[in-house]
Amino acid sequence: MSLANRDLLGIEDLDSDDIYRILDTARAFKEVSKRRIKKVPSLRGRTILNAFFEASTRTRVSFELASKRLSADAVNISSSGSSVSKGESLLDTAQTLDAMQADAVVLRHSESGAPHYLAGRIKARIINAGDGQHEHPTQALLDLCTIRERFPKLDGLDVAIIGDIKHSRVARSDLVAMRKLGMNVRLAGPQTLLPRDVARAYGCEVCDSVEEALEGAHVVVALRLQRERMKSGFLPTLQEYAIEFGINRHRLQKTHSDAILLHPGPVNRGIELSNDLVNGDRSVILDQVENGVAVRAAVLYLILGGDAL
Amino acid sequence: MSLANRDLLGIEDLDSDDIYRILDTARAFKEVSKRRIKKVPSLRGRTILNAFFEASTRTRVSFELASKRLSADAVNISSSGSSVSKGESLLDTAQTLDAMQADAVVLRHSESGAPHYLAGRIKARIINAGDGQHEHPTQALLDLCTIRERFPKLDGLDVAIIGDIKHSRVARSDLVAMRKLGMNVRLAGPQTLLPRDVARAYGCEVCDSVEEALEGAHVVVALRLQRERMKSGFLPTLQEYAIEFGINRHRLQKTHSDAILLHPGPVNRGIELSNDLVNGDRSVILDQVENGVAVRAAVLYLILGGDAL
Amino acid sequence: MSLANRDLLGIEDLDSDDIYRILDTARAFKEVSKRRIKKVPSLRGRTILNAFFEASTRTRVSFELASKRLSADAVNISSSGSSVSKGESLLDTAQTLDAMQADAVVLRHSESGAPHYLAGRIKARIINAGDGQHEHPTQALLDLCTIRERFPKLDGLDVAIIGDIKHSRVARSDLVAMRKLGMNVRLAGPQTLLPRDVARAYGCEVCDSVEEALEGAHVVVALRLQRERMKSGFLPTLQEYAIEFGINRHRLQKTHSDAILLHPGPVNRGIELSNDLVNGDRSVILDQVENGVAVRAAVLYLILGGDAL
Repeated sequence: MSLANRDLLGIEDLDSDDIYRILDTARAFKEVSKRRIKKVPSLRGRTILNAFFEASTRTRVSFELASKRLSADAVNISSSGSSVSKGESLLDTAQTLDAMQADAVVLRHSESGAPHYLAGRIKARIINAGDGQHEHPTQALLDLCTIRERFPKLDGLDVAIIGDIKHSRVARSDLVAMRKLGMNVRLAGPQTLLPRDVARAYGCEVCDSVEEALEGAHVVVALRLQRERMKSGFLPTLQEYAIEFGINRHRLQKTHSDAILLHPGPVNRGIELSNDLVNGDRSVILDQVENGVAVRAAVLYLILGGDAL
Repeated sequence: MSLANRDLLGIEDLDSDDIYRILDTARAFKEVSKRRIKKVPSLRGRTILNAFFEASTRTRVSFELASKRLSADAVNISSSGSSVSKGESLLDTAQTLDAMQADAVVLRHSESGAPHYLAGRIKARIINAGDGQHEHPTQALLDLCTIRERFPKLDGLDVAIIGDIKHSRVARSDLVAMRKLGMNVRLAGPQTLLPRDVARAYGCEVCDSVEEALEGAHVVVALRLQRERMKSGFLPTLQEYAIEFGINRHRLQKTHSDAILLHPGPVNRGIELSNDLVNGDRSVILDQVENGVAVRAAVLYLILGGDAL
Repeated sequence: MSLANRDLLGIEDLDSDDIYRILDTARAFKEVSKRRIKKVPSLRGRTILNAFFEASTRTRVSFELASKRLSADAVNISSSGSSVSKGESLLDTAQTLDAMQADAVVLRHSESGAPHYLAGRIKARIINAGDGQHEHPTQALLDLCTIRERFPKLDGLDVAIIGDIKHSRVARSDLVAMRKLGMNVRLAGPQTLLPRDVARAYGCEVCDSVEEALEGAHVVVALRLQRERMKSGFLPTLQEYAIEFGINRHRLQKTHSDAILLHPGPVNRGIELSNDLVNGDRSVILDQVENGVAVRAAVLYLILGGDAL
């Protein structure tokens, strides 16, 4: 099925063909981003509204650059100074943007399910740029795009996801996407930060230690530790977390000899990753950032049915 | 007289020919906004500075989209992080923007008369996007544009404007515009929120009740109730306001059978309008938003003397 | 040596040929800004990231307009709502922007040396838009551009720089640039706000009074007094500063009969400059603003190796 005129609410709604179509298109856009003139006229005259109701720089800039490289007109809206601070409901805000003939609304929202609530209620296509603790589909897609550059055959790869699985929309989208493509996922993290039943729900394995999860893994995804978790009593101290779950050069030796290390950024250096690993030879963190623009361009292009590349 | 090279400070400065010229041009731009490629090259290479020194999303986004659909270069300035917070005067700020060769400065300011003060003091054209409690001319123009889509002959229509007339720049611009086009305006609202002498000053009628104002009206304009009015002692409680002045399905039955309902947005649902009316069949609130982009494009186009459409 | 593919970290790195090349190019761009269509396709499809981690309007807008007039794609990042507020390091932030294939990062940062630290660590060209109390090279270049319009031969001109020399990146960049072009610089300001050894370090003269510094000067640069200096005990009161160091019509009589008055803006009227001088016939403050866009366009153009004008 074509992606044209569909919303991108979550990886849940995509099948493996959809995912591979996005990854293939992203590869073409990555080539565009390396040209001197990083711009194609595909979405000229289209309107893309970046509605970020939660702080974000990298994702907003990534979508904004993707829009501009497709020649679309992008307008940013953030919560500060917006009608949202006047108490307007999300639906009223979205209908207003919609009435201005937006082609797509890229939505970052602190409430899980916010983009799903809007879907079908407005005419514009909705692209989920992160909703609460639910999904962050373009992050999973850029992760896959990055993994595939090193391991062309995704099916059968072993992936370890380490950290706060419970509150992470990145983990959730990664898990769903990777399982759809036949990848084997192992999780490790503090007991308090692992959702119950996650193994059964997603068909993955929960490990008792980081070491067990890393054993022979082709891909390691370290999650960002939100410092606010400590206040909520989920964690004793950052130091204890670093000692028990932080990934360092020593622990990484357990992985496959070609293993790569991903992180959605920004990294808490010395906590979830030891300082030397961030820019080390296993790290593909900056590749993720670069592929992020390409994946978002691919999503916008496929959904808005852009002219041929 | 042509609008080229004039400022748009308020409806006060326009005659009915000017108003109809803007409305006719807006109609053409509305058609552009419905195309796949929502863009014309009319103002390519022109610089439009959106200087919003008061919080606003919908008006700022509306002007920004209008600028982009005309292919102009639009740059946003808000008060936070601006020289204004370093204590620079409005005139110094405006002269600075002007020296950067802005073609137009779109100004939203909390002080009534701010755009008039700048007019003639800078070279760029000034477009008032709302000044204090004075005027909001593009709002009145988009209201007229919306009314005209349902009632092609504006002359002789009966309009009811309900709410806080005293503090509303929307009410003031609407009143002036509607009277210039021969529309009959009736007002209703709390005694404390009706300006003295408004009937004589604008040639409109002040009614004793909402019901009296709505009687047979073709057009109902509900104003947004600013919650800060309650603190200033103008209003007892929101509930009492809703009971006495809120428009609901029952009250709307008093109007003309084809009557339409306008609101400048964002709506306080359950206060000035009952929840069911906002997206009901009488509501043209989203048409107002859509026409807002078209009207602002028309204003920019006519004032900056864009090339033929 | 060509400026292509170099960073602009400070005037320190430029020789007089570089400076004159930028000034000559700026002159051509100023002509573009006076056209009806203020736009050339020189940098179409290039990505310029304006990373302003310190409040600024005029410099950010100036760079943004310069980018747009060159047809580049410009994206803004400020510290509020950015990863910087999540504790990400400057290098991590910069590498992230870099991975998005930025051609240039325009950096405003409160730490002296921030752009130098990044240079060589990222692929994008770095343009210093003000770093702490160190340099603000495009300000010095626009000052020179403005002076040269009135005095075509810069070599041998007498310049007085008045105010808080110690904390001023404008003063430092001006001093270095002017000395490189053979201009004679005299300084005056409160003892507490004059760096030790400044005379020897820069080959300029420190005067005992404003009057002495102004005597016969062709060019007067008044610096902005940062109000926070008073809290730090550098200054007694603003009034005393104004009396002893404020420039007024009377004091200006000591200068050359064709002398011009510069200020980086925004002006504290009545403190460093008397109110009547700001828009008086000696003032070239608005010329500075206008030339700012042209100088920044020239810098972006030369560094990014734009196509022929």
